[in-house]
Amino acid sequence: MITDGIDSRHTMSTHGFTIGIDYGTNSVRAVVVDCADGRVVGTRVFEYPSGDHGVLLDPKQPHLARQNPEDYLAGLRASVTGALSDAERHDGFVRDRVIGIGVDTTGSTPLPIDAQAQPLARDPAFRGNLAAHAWLWKDHTSADEAAAITEAAKQHAPELLAPIGGTYSSEWWWSKIWHCLNVAPEVFDAAASWVELADFIPAVLAGVREPAAIVRCVCAAGHKAMYSDAWGGLPPTAFLARLDRRLADLRDRLYDKAWPPGRPAGHLSDEWAATLGLPAGMPIAMGGFDAHYGAVGSGITTGTLVKIIGTSTCDCAIAPAADRIQDIPGICGIVNGSIMPGYFGIEAGQSAVGDLLNWWVERICGGGAGLHDALTRDAAQLAPGESGLVALDWNNGNRTVLVDPRLTGLIVGQTLHTTRAEVYRALIEATAYGARAIVERVRDYGVAVDRVVCCGGIAEKNDLFMQIYADVIGQPMLIAGSPQTPALGAALSAAVTAGRAAGGYGDWTEAQTRMTTLKEKRFEPRPDARAVYDELYAIYRELHDAFGGVPGAGADFSAVMKRLLAIKARATGVAA
Amino acid sequence: MITDGIDSRHTMSTHGFTIGIDYGTNSVRAVVVDCADGRVVGTRVFEYPSGDHGVLLDPKQPHLARQNPEDYLAGLRASVTGALSDAERHDGFVRDRVIGIGVDTTGSTPLPIDAQAQPLARDPAFRGNLAAHAWLWKDHTSADEAAAITEAAKQHAPELLAPIGGTYSSEWWWSKIWHCLNVAPEVFDAAASWVELADFIPAVLAGVREPAAIVRCVCAAGHKAMYSDAWGGLPPTAFLARLDRRLADLRDRLYDKAWPPGRPAGHLSDEWAATLGLPAGMPIAMGGFDAHYGAVGSGITTGTLVKIIGTSTCDCAIAPAADRIQDIPGICGIVNGSIMPGYFGIEAGQSAVGDLLNWWVERICGGGAGLHDALTRDAAQLAPGESGLVALDWNNGNRTVLVDPRLTGLIVGQTLHTTRAEVYRALIEATAYGARAIVERVRDYGVAVDRVVCCGGIAEKNDLFMQIYADVIGQPMLIAGSPQTPALGAALSAAVTAGRAAGGYGDWTEAQTRMTTLKEKRFEPRPDARAVYDELYAIYRELHDAFGGVPGAGADFSAVMKRLLAIKARATGVAA
Repeated sequence: MITDGIDSRHTMSTHGFTIGIDYGTNSVRAVVVDCADGRVVGTRVFEYPSGDHGVLLDPKQPHLARQNPEDYLAGLRASVTGALSDAERHDGFVRDRVIGIGVDTTGSTPLPIDAQAQPLARDPAFRGNLAAHAWLWKDHTSADEAAAITEAAKQHAPELLAPIGGTYSSEWWWSKIWHCLNVAPEVFDAAASWVELADFIPAVLAGVREPAAIVRCVCAAGHKAMYSDAWGGLPPTAFLARLDRRLADLRDRLYDKAWPPGRPAGHLSDEWAATLGLPAGMPIAMGGFDAHYGAVGSGITTGTLVKIIGTSTCDCAIAPAADRIQDIPGICGIVNGSIMPGYFGIEAGQSAVGDLLNWWVERICGGGAGLHDALTRDAAQLAPGESGLVALDWNNGNRTVLVDPRLTGLIVGQTLHTTRAEVYRALIEATAYGARAIVERVRDYGVAVDRVVCCGGIAEKNDLFMQIYADVIGQPMLIAGSPQTPALGAALSAAVTAGRAAGGYGDWTEAQTRMTTLKEKRFEPRPDARAVYDELYAIYRELHDAFGGVPGAGADFSAVMKRLLAIKARATGVAA
Repeated sequence: MITDGIDSRHTMSTHGFTIGIDYGTNSVRAVVVDCADGRVVGTRVFEYPSGDHGVLLDPKQPHLARQNPEDYLAGLRASVTGALSDAERHDGFVRDRVIGIGVDTTGSTPLPIDAQAQPLARDPAFRGNLAAHAWLWKDHTSADEAAAITEAAKQHAPELLAPIGGTYSSEWWWSKIWHCLNVAPEVFDAAASWVELADFIPAVLAGVREPAAIVRCVCAAGHKAMYSDAWGGLPPTAFLARLDRRLADLRDRLYDKAWPPGRPAGHLSDEWAATLGLPAGMPIAMGGFDAHYGAVGSGITTGTLVKIIGTSTCDCAIAPAADRIQDIPGICGIVNGSIMPGYFGIEAGQSAVGDLLNWWVERICGGGAGLHDALTRDAAQLAPGESGLVALDWNNGNRTVLVDPRLTGLIVGQTLHTTRAEVYRALIEATAYGARAIVERVRDYGVAVDRVVCCGGIAEKNDLFMQIYADVIGQPMLIAGSPQTPALGAALSAAVTAGRAAGGYGDWTEAQTRMTTLKEKRFEPRPDARAVYDELYAIYRELHDAFGGVPGAGADFSAVMKRLLAIKARATGVAA
């Protein structure tokens, strides 16, 4: 489309620009996107200043992970103003042509807010209280509450769990809020309401001043908070009261209705318009989770599995809402409208992928510059099966298909000759086996997976990783064209929300066709490697089923990891 | 006994001095010992110059480990002359008072010899042929032959395996010689006979010039070559012929009788007397394995388990020959007279102990000065159970009680927070669980273990290791007084062989009472730690039994490691 600096379409274009803001685990990134073709014309990253790379930790509670809401607000200003300054160096960009803003975030990342919809953590009385901060997606302190919710739902309201995989996670909304109630009742009592980060940032931009005015996305509500139209919104009061009377009371201070993307969550307030140097009143797209907007930015369609591969991995697929699809055990969620309106959004995930390799390189091998690259190089020299190793990818539990955060890692096959590069490769392979288990599960339940599109840092950079995935899964691995698919997807949502007349789009398919691309590079499965990996995967599955406690597995070792965690908890005095 | 430089006993003593020569994996050490009290008055270590620290390797065959017999001979000269020079600086030592020489070696370490009892590897025609060199104890190339011997014996002559644990090992005599026949028939055909290193060195010192004149020790014969008086010596010709006709033929060129220690294997030849600067004619004690003489040098008695803890571990116990003790499944050997005459020598072992920690530190953590110490320090800060890890200590297979070299390592319980020090400790604990499994097995079969005496480098230096052993095994860990118990035991054997009249001893008990000691430092089990380790050991046993293929285990994962090895073998083109 671009020849000799003249973009024929662009010069003719009536398309505007949108801003996508992507709240990650360690930083927030804003991009300014040309709606004509999805090109990023400005970008800025803001690293969260608090805690350990933005994560507030507690040495006494290894499963705790919180974030400082001040980082979110400072990052909102800095990233958007920076991206706009960057965009101004781009020929054809002017701030007046910005037509909308989209936001994606990690999740479930709930935070308690006061009656003015301000984060409780900004109140001097709660500034030092970790429970008053944002409960980051990977906070696993609420394992007991999650188990109790699962148990209560299984007994009294199994329909609540059916669309979210049959098990309620310690990473999710109600587990975290209930845990806050249990360990920091002063915070729970002081909270006027709670809000997902994905809904909080749009509300901030829209200048919302009371919790009831916050517009909630069905993405967070449906996948994490047991929201469904089938039972009229959030879980019934009677069910919440079984957990704790005060949770039932809280329900009234939350929300009745959540929305798919495509409608505005609000419009840019005068105050934030001034802060950012943008026209006031432009639509703010519905917030959404990074993975879901990443799937949109990767060009998700029916039959496409999008894998967002980073520290952890999220898998997304969609199926037409007109098709009645059955619940899929162990799949984190199937929610109408959560990714795009008119489709069921299907979400699965792996709790540690890049994190598993980081653990090996940093914690075990001692880290150092270039060690990832060196191990990747050495690992690439190995043939499939050559290491003699199989690992389970559970150092951070298993999100799909076992939905059990209290599983741990396992490596088998070591000799005295086993090298660090062999283990590194075995860990990559372990995550690929985990990925294959997910693909097999959704296929078993009738969801087509004809195409796999990967995005995220690992997909961009690590060819070995991608080739192993192609060989293990037996499917070509395609790579999304944008290195920032969540931000792109959020910007695309803003373009659709703004609408054609404003310089955006009238529908999602058209927007995706124009704004998203695939890289030329793709990874094809190699038949020889695939045959070896079929054998190794069979071993992985035996261990997976036995240690994961899959009913009907040939052996039951499901207690081993739990017993080790219990012994560890006693030894350290900290719930493991 | 020593005050102000005057040793009242010594000045009165009519005791002589003996030399103990200890052939290890990487070096040979000679010590000159005062028979009066076991003190070492001279010592010298000779590092083998060939290969990788004395071990000849073949990059294409990871299980191959050979040694150059030239190293043995050069080391014999250098270590003994060096130790004698060292001793001469000691007041009271004169060469004329040396009354005998004892030798201990690794084993089973057989080497092919020619008709003059010279190593075949010295023949220029075979110098470059690894099969013509010494087959070091840890050479595992003969796994197929070992399995075939086990199978044949189980079917046709189960009595042969009964005293050696029920499984014939790839580390042992017949497996290695048969493998030589299969892969290097030219070497097999050229060999006039084969000899254990433990018998070879005494024969060298005695100037033996023909294979038939080599005096063989029952220690090597009984534990490694299926020798027993019960069936008239080596396995019957008919049995060997089932394996290969040529093995049956070889039997006639080996030996009919093997002997316990206490009688001379020969007397110092004029040639070697001149080489070493010693009187000719003194008795050479029967050769023996390092572990067995290490047990003697640690003061082994009925009810004492001696653990020689090094790269691998050997456990020794004795029981009066008058008691009929039953065969013990999985215990490598129960041989009359193998450690001391008049007692059954009972031997067990673990294939990788120090090697397992070395693997972790060098291969995985990247090594570096002081890393063992740093990890030990960090691991010592951890409470039992705190790591949440359990490992199987099988990176080099399992010698006792499973007797299966084709088992591999396993670690379970890792999280993203797991540190290298936690794994280091888990690996120490894994070896302690393996040690406990051995203690339980021998006790189950009526052999008392009232006292555990440890020796070897790890026992000397690593207090954390010893404390974990005390806590896991539930028994105080005592430490042998000498840092060189095998060489001391060989020297003690020489003192008994020389006899009281010559300045030695009339019996073993007297010699041990005078010549061996314990360190004051000892490690007591701590009840709290022991309780935690009881729980962890229960998990270890479940995994051990399931992955080790113990009949009746709750689960059978015995195929997992074998399948991984088979896949690895195909991937690398090398038998794993």
